[in-house]
Order: sequence, then structure tokens, then C-alpha cells
Amino acid sequence: MPDQAMPTLHDIVSARPHVSRFLTPTPLYHYATLSELLGAQVWVKHENHQPIGAFKVRGGLNLAASLSLAERQTGLFTASTGNHGQSIAFAARAFDLDATIVVPQGANPGKVAAMRGLGAQVIFHGSDFDVAREWAMNMAGERGGHFVGPTDEPLIHGVGTYALEILEALPDVQAIIVPVGAGSGVCGTSIVAKSINPRIEVFGAQSAQAPAMQRSWQAGELLTAPMNTFAEGIATRVPFANTQRIMRRYLDDFLLVNDEAIEEAILLLLQHTHNLAEGAGAVPLAAALKHKERLAGKNVVLVLSGGNLSIERLRQILAKHSSK
Amino acid sequence: MPDQAMPTLHDIVSARPHVSRFLTPTPLYHYATLSELLGAQVWVKHENHQPIGAFKVRGGLNLAASLSLAERQTGLFTASTGNHGQSIAFAARAFDLDATIVVPQGANPGKVAAMRGLGAQVIFHGSDFDVAREWAMNMAGERGGHFVGPTDEPLIHGVGTYALEILEALPDVQAIIVPVGAGSGVCGTSIVAKSINPRIEVFGAQSAQAPAMQRSWQAGELLTAPMNTFAEGIATRVPFANTQRIMRRYLDDFLLVNDEAIEEAILLLLQHTHNLAEGAGAVPLAAALKHKERLAGKNVVLVLSGGNLSIERLRQILAKHSSK
Repeated sequence: MPDQAMPTLHDIVSARPHVSRFLTPTPLYHYATLSELLGAQVWVKHENHQPIGAFKVRGGLNLAASLSLAERQTGLFTASTGNHGQSIAFAARAFDLDATIVVPQGANPGKVAAMRGLGAQVIFHGSDFDVAREWAMNMAGERGGHFVGPTDEPLIHGVGTYALEILEALPDVQAIIVPVGAGSGVCGTSIVAKSINPRIEVFGAQSAQAPAMQRSWQAGELLTAPMNTFAEGIATRVPFANTQRIMRRYLDDFLLVNDEAIEEAILLLLQHTHNLAEGAGAVPLAAALKHKERLAGKNVVLVLSGGNLSIERLRQILAKHSSK
Repeated sequence: MPDQAMPTLHDIVSARPHVSRFLTPTPLYHYATLSELLGAQVWVKHENHQPIGAFKVRGGLNLAASLSLAERQTGLFTASTGNHGQSIAFAARAFDLDATIVVPQGANPGKVAAMRGLGAQVIFHGSDFDVAREWAMNMAGERGGHFVGPTDEPLIHGVGTYALEILEALPDVQAIIVPVGAGSGVCGTSIVAKSINPRIEVFGAQSAQAPAMQRSWQAGELLTAPMNTFAEGIATRVPFANTQRIMRRYLDDFLLVNDEAIEEAILLLLQHTHNLAEGAGAVPLAAALKHKERLAGKNVVLVLSGGNLSIERLRQILAKHSSK
């Protein structure tokens, strides 16, 4: 197979009308107290304010808009730990398509309820995302439907639109930290940032309890790794070739943080911004705190990618970190 | 003193450019699971997504825009339990004015830190809002500054702009439930709703542990009442004449809910919308649950007025309602 072309800024700019037809830009807010904490000027990109509570909705809408008539008729099949499934469900409803979403056993119940609330058919199968994904691919094959992979190009183009909003709202941004699950967000962000101003540093960040994407990026080859993070949005066990090749080209560094630090970052975001972050959404703050010296004095954007934390998890985290 | 003229839809429409110069419209999202819970179609107006985490920022900006040159030079003085103070601090920064804000002892520390982060001078004085307010008025008098009362007309005009956004996003809205503290939000909302479509029902809602505004509205005269609610955004002990007269003209009903029910509504909003609501912001959902039969089958908007709940309070609420 010949090398696929790299997605470009043009792809992301072209996705924008498909996204803005349904979504308004999310806020980018400066927080004085977080800035003090980090010794930098800190803004948060509030993708948790999206209708499904996560950035992925941008990708789903762009993907649905890019389907052929035949693909629209057979409907969409995908697998998800939650937010990607909500994105596809949201897009399917917007475009009046059928959507079938395979989720792993034990998936975040709030996310599952939201998918069903949007009219999608949800099927539980497998112990983790990667098992669910195989199942969804088989279903799509058997029924002649369109399988949506988590790093399909139209998804990367769609989610990249939040980075356009960041650069327009804060042209002087110097560093952007993005959580990495399958990598669509960080790819979209780095394509936009590096194409517009190569001096902007883009950092990926992930849990040390699920480092497959980070290890693959460092090694320059696809490596699986143990997956034990509580943060389902970044719970990747098997790396994705498509996003790895983009990350290798564009990413400045890829940071790991412990789940413990992610939990603390959830509480700091609650305290300082009054926003609920899910694990993935809090990873950038955790990474920034761990690498303060690299950000000192800079204009830093933390991408709060999603807010869909379950109340049970929140209760556990508050109880565990009771001195905070 | 002759009767003051009633604020009109025209006043609120005229405030809009002053508000939209700095703020984008907040989302109005439909929630399938809340709809099921209430037996109605339920939308939430996310004023907690504002830069200060509360609707009041709209009023502060409109007020600052309406000042004379002399008033700009002497700076602003006000009293607040938190969100109004943040609004004045935000507007003062936007217009490069001095702001002095008197807060009662024990004020929400996150709100105080945010006011200071915005550059305002914060002074602690008095046991509750009404004591702090007297002090702030005296300070303004002594120093020749402009005192901003919590129900000044430009504030009502400014906050009313969220109701314009509701009606544009959901022309078929049938009922809107608004928390009542000093009453600026409910007045702005009812002026807009009744002027555009008198059949839209507008309900005020307040804690039964601080019912001064509700009792005054029912009695048709200004009555103080005990104030023991945890929800500082609606902790009014002394009613406001200016908003009472507007509410008497426009409001369909004024509902009371216990603090206990407000706490449960905070948890329901976390669970179903993944948004943190402060006490005031959760009052509409608590009131809707208590009066389900009046809303059955209708298109209902709950105004989530603000999200500035302290993490300590959230921890207490989660511990107290541990079966939820």
C-alpha cells in the first residue's frame, strides 16, 4: 500500500463549515489561579462544553457530512468507550442515519445512556475497546454498513477545528497540551498549530497506566502496552498507525502522567474552573504540573477534551484525595 | 418618588451589543435522560459556561457600557456574595475601571479568588449580603464612587439577553424556570418571554430556607424572612422593591424547594449533564421535579444560572447523599 497523504491545514479548514453548521465555537478561558499555580499564563479550551460533553462531536459531524449517498443508506457502525460513540450518535441523528455502536463491558453508563438518548443502537461486547472494535468491524462487514474507525481522516479533520479556534482566540499561544487516546485530537491540533506557526509547541499527554501510544511514538514503531488507566477516553492498548505517523512528524513531545496525578488534576479543575473533567480531560493539567519548568512564563493552552466523568468515579476521587 | 418606568424588551434588545461585544451566546442543550425523569422535554441554558461561571457577567458588562465618563473615573463599588462581584470585576477589567467589592464574612473562597484574579479590590465585611451592601454603599458615598446595586436596571437589561438567546434557539419553549436571588435574572427573562409570547410560563424558584422574595411576591408587600440556605446565590434576606414590582407584573408562579432537594438536583445535574451547578443553578431542576405535573409534556428550559460550587461543598453533598 502506498503511503497515505498527510492531512493538511486545508483539510481542517475545509471541515469547518460542516462543524459550524451544528456547533458554536467553545470558549477559551484564562484562569488567574491556574496561571499562578503553573507559573505560566494558562487558558483552558472548553471542549467539555460541547453538546455531547466532548470534542469528538466535531469529528462525527464532519465524517457524516463526507459520506456518499450509499454510505448514508447503510448506516454507521463503530466501537467506542464513550465519547466517540456519542459523537457518531449525535452526527447520525443530525443527518438522519442509523448508528450501531459497540461498547466494551463496563462502559461508562452515563456515556451509554447518552448514546441511546441520541437514538443509537448500543451493543455491549468485549473486555476493552480493542475487542469491541473488532466486533464492530465484523458487524459492519456482515451487514454491508460503513465502519467508522477511531482515527478515520474525516474525524481528524473535524476535531482539528478546535485548534483553529484556539489560534484565532489566542494568536500568541506558545504551547498546547492535548490528551492522547487514539490521537485524532493531537493530530488535528499539531497540524493546525505547526502549519500556522511552527514555533508553537504541541505536547501529547497520556496516562502512564496506558502508554501504548507514547511508547510507540518514542520507539518509532507500533507497540502495544498494558492498559490499566481509569480514564476510558485515553485507555488505548493497541496503537494506531495512522495517527502515529502524523504525531511523529509534528509532535514536540509526548508526556506521561500517573492516574493519581490525573485524579488530582480533576479536583484542581473543579476547584479553579468549576468544570467537571473526565480523566482524559484532566491529563493536560496533570502533565503541565509535572513539567512546569518547560512552560514557565509561556502562554499555555490546556485542552479540556471532555467532561463525562461518572458521579461514582467523582465520589471515589473526592474520598481518596480528602485533604484537597 | 414617582413610579419608575418598567424595563422593556427594547431595553434588553439594546443591551445585547454591549454583551455580545465580549461574550458569545451560551449553549441551550436538550437532555434525553432529564426529559425522561421529568416527563417533559428538558433543555438546560448553560449560563455556567460564561467566563465567570455565571449569568451575571452579562449585567456587569451592560452596566459598565452605560456609565458616564465621570462615573468611569471614580470606579465602581458594590457588594456581593460572589457572582455579582465577579461580574463587576470582569466588567471593570474589560473597561479598565477600578472596582471595590464588599463580600460578607465566609464568602465562597473560589468566587473571592476569582474577583481578585480579575483585579478587583475585595473587602470582607458583615455577616451576610445585606450587611455588606450597606457598607459598600457607605464607602461609595464617602469616596464619591458609583455604587452598583444588585438590581440596578442596566443589570436587568444585560442579564435579560440570555432569555433572547433561549427564545431564538427554542421558539417553541413553553416554560422557563429561573432561580431568584435579587431577581435580576427572573425579571429579564419574564420581560423577554412575556413580550415575545405571553403564553410562555415563567416560574421563579428559590430555597424555602431563604423565602423573602417569594413571600414578598405572594403578599404583594416587601417582607424580610429568615435566611439559612447554603446556596449563596439565592441567599436573600431583604427583598428588592425594584425587581418585586416587575415580578408582580410578569411572573406566573414562584416556587419554593428545600435545600435538601437543591443538593439532590446538583447531583442529578452532575450525573445527567456532567456540569457542576452551584446551589442557585440547581434550583430550577429541583423545582421542576417538585412540580412535574405542571410541566408534563411541555418544552421546559431550566436556567443553570451558575456553576461556582466550592469543592468542599460538593464533597459534603456527595457524602450526604451517598446512595445517589
